[in-house]
Amino acid sequence: MTITHPQGFEAAGIAAGIKRTGALDLALVVNRGPAQQAAAVFTSNRAQANPIIWSRQVAADGIVSAIVLNSGGANCFTGPEGFQVTHRTAEAAASGLGVAAGDVLVCSTGLIGDQLDGEVLEEGVVSAIARLSSDDGGGDDAARAIMTTDTTPKQVVVVGDGWSIGGMAKGAGMLAPGLATMLVVVTTDAALSAADLDSALRAATRVTFDRLDSDGCMSTNDQVTLLASGASDVAPEPTEFAAALTEACRSLAMQLQADAEGASHDIAIEVVGAVTEDDAVEVGRSVARNNLFKAAIFGNDPNWGRVLAAIGTTSAPFDPYLVDVSMNGVRVCHAGRPDAPRDDVDLTPRATHVLIELHAGEASATIFTNDLTHDYVHENSAYAS
Amino acid sequence: MTITHPQGFEAAGIAAGIKRTGALDLALVVNRGPAQQAAAVFTSNRAQANPIIWSRQVAADGIVSAIVLNSGGANCFTGPEGFQVTHRTAEAAASGLGVAAGDVLVCSTGLIGDQLDGEVLEEGVVSAIARLSSDDGGGDDAARAIMTTDTTPKQVVVVGDGWSIGGMAKGAGMLAPGLATMLVVVTTDAALSAADLDSALRAATRVTFDRLDSDGCMSTNDQVTLLASGASDVAPEPTEFAAALTEACRSLAMQLQADAEGASHDIAIEVVGAVTEDDAVEVGRSVARNNLFKAAIFGNDPNWGRVLAAIGTTSAPFDPYLVDVSMNGVRVCHAGRPDAPRDDVDLTPRATHVLIELHAGEASATIFTNDLTHDYVHENSAYAS
Repeated sequence: MTITHPQGFEAAGIAAGIKRTGALDLALVVNRGPAQQAAAVFTSNRAQANPIIWSRQVAADGIVSAIVLNSGGANCFTGPEGFQVTHRTAEAAASGLGVAAGDVLVCSTGLIGDQLDGEVLEEGVVSAIARLSSDDGGGDDAARAIMTTDTTPKQVVVVGDGWSIGGMAKGAGMLAPGLATMLVVVTTDAALSAADLDSALRAATRVTFDRLDSDGCMSTNDQVTLLASGASDVAPEPTEFAAALTEACRSLAMQLQADAEGASHDIAIEVVGAVTEDDAVEVGRSVARNNLFKAAIFGNDPNWGRVLAAIGTTSAPFDPYLVDVSMNGVRVCHAGRPDAPRDDVDLTPRATHVLIELHAGEASATIFTNDLTHDYVHENSAYAS
Repeated sequence: MTITHPQGFEAAGIAAGIKRTGALDLALVVNRGPAQQAAAVFTSNRAQANPIIWSRQVAADGIVSAIVLNSGGANCFTGPEGFQVTHRTAEAAASGLGVAAGDVLVCSTGLIGDQLDGEVLEEGVVSAIARLSSDDGGGDDAARAIMTTDTTPKQVVVVGDGWSIGGMAKGAGMLAPGLATMLVVVTTDAALSAADLDSALRAATRVTFDRLDSDGCMSTNDQVTLLASGASDVAPEPTEFAAALTEACRSLAMQLQADAEGASHDIAIEVVGAVTEDDAVEVGRSVARNNLFKAAIFGNDPNWGRVLAAIGTTSAPFDPYLVDVSMNGVRVCHAGRPDAPRDDVDLTPRATHVLIELHAGEASATIFTNDLTHDYVHENSAYAS
């Protein structure tokens, strides 16, 4: 169940000493080929961490040999020194692996504004190279080494016909679209071009990671990377591959949602009857970002008025007074009026389904979010201490 | 210090029985003239409560004789029956006061989706008319009768040269722009036309209530109304009046911020060096709505990285790597890099100042918000129960 499941990949996760706790904090993933095709998507935040600035350039040619990922510091807003640390990290990996630094991606996660120690990272990369393994253990360690406030590693394997996909992800807070705050590495031994990988990755993230909006906060460090070794020597149909990749990304996104900081409900906000899919996304996101709605769900309160107040702030075309709202299968609002009694709704399960029927068109989308809890406030008020 | 300070106004606040607690829940404000000029601004939420739908029509001609306000129910998403309740309320006031129903505004606040009892409101209006008073007591009672989760009434008086302004407001949660969730009534005995009142009110709310963004959630029931009796027989210069009105609105807005649900910090986010004022507002609002930033302030954590991550999501023109951020007078980020140590910042006072210098232009704006606290989550998860 790890990123080393597909043929051609090795991984390691070690404690480099970046985290004061001594926990695993540096991961390395290497694509041994024969192909080294890749695609990546990055945060759309204009405030971009140094590893994002670096990795955008590296990924541009569709060739990636290795990825170094560290937790314990975001290396964002750390100035030119911070960029030098990222560069030095890539150089250390390139030198140890016998590849070009320009083919080594770097990802970082942790607190913004703290300098990372370049020497610690360089030594960590050397140690990680010595521990590289194509066994499950290497992938497992890597998945653990990228955790921050995550309570559990997130991994997935999807098996195709003679090829497979493996994936790992981290992310527990600052989960918002374009992308959620996350570092994700997906590997495959399918034989596909960088262009096909890029199309498949964009199609998959659009309906998975980009629809996860845990707390409306967009990170400076998000990166989702897809590496293809071609080691299976099987070239699946692009649509078949894209479907499997979407399945893998959806699994990882749901694992991120389930481990979101302090959350007590995993909420799927399904919007149907929109004029366009973009409208459905806008409507769903307005609810996902409404603190009053999120606090009500925490309190098991089917306060549908807060759903309507939230969607009333959007520019999507629909008549608020024709809208139906159901919670966990009970329609509490019909045509802009109270319907079934609130007491009929059972919000005690963690899995929560909110259905919003706009009656304006045929398009739909589902946004995944979490409730706003005491624990969310606590974890995020104590993060830096 | 009440809305009955200006000449020509009477007010009352009574317990009509809308709230199960028996607290004051119905307010009446009457303009005895000689003039009955008025201006009003309403929520920009597309989901609009019945009293908003009614009052928009009533206010359109610039003539308002009286306002009935109730707490204990928003009368929003209550269908045609709900609209009939609003209409019946206005008719009851008109009949008892000998004015036209088309000159009576209605405002409601409370839970969305609950029907109000028209008979209770009608009887309440009759009782309120019997209690009308031009003394401070009438205004005080009215200010208390519109409270929901407010812990204290909000009132203001600004005295001009031979004329004055009085105001009252309610609002503790769902405070977001365009407008914040609030009901506000401002009275004046200045002799001004409805057109002058409208210009002054829009100018004042733009830089006061519209810059208050406590929790990013926009209400369905907001209404700010300005009534002018002309009883002073003094016609101030429109600019002089607008300045006094802005002062009154700012005082009420600051009182709303200070009583925001569960808040432990009142945060002023001052953005300077923007290209346009709209850019400054967009930048400030992105920070005011960032849950991670708000939770950090609750924890007295000067986490400036969250400020930069938030402003990086805006489309305002500036270079994130030229930005300075100061908290309570300590510059913790300079030109996109760490500056003074975080430990130098004292965030223990309730009044919190965040200064964001964009270095892109000459425009500025300040957004007022609150922190995200355990108590906010608690109050808003238990509201309907």
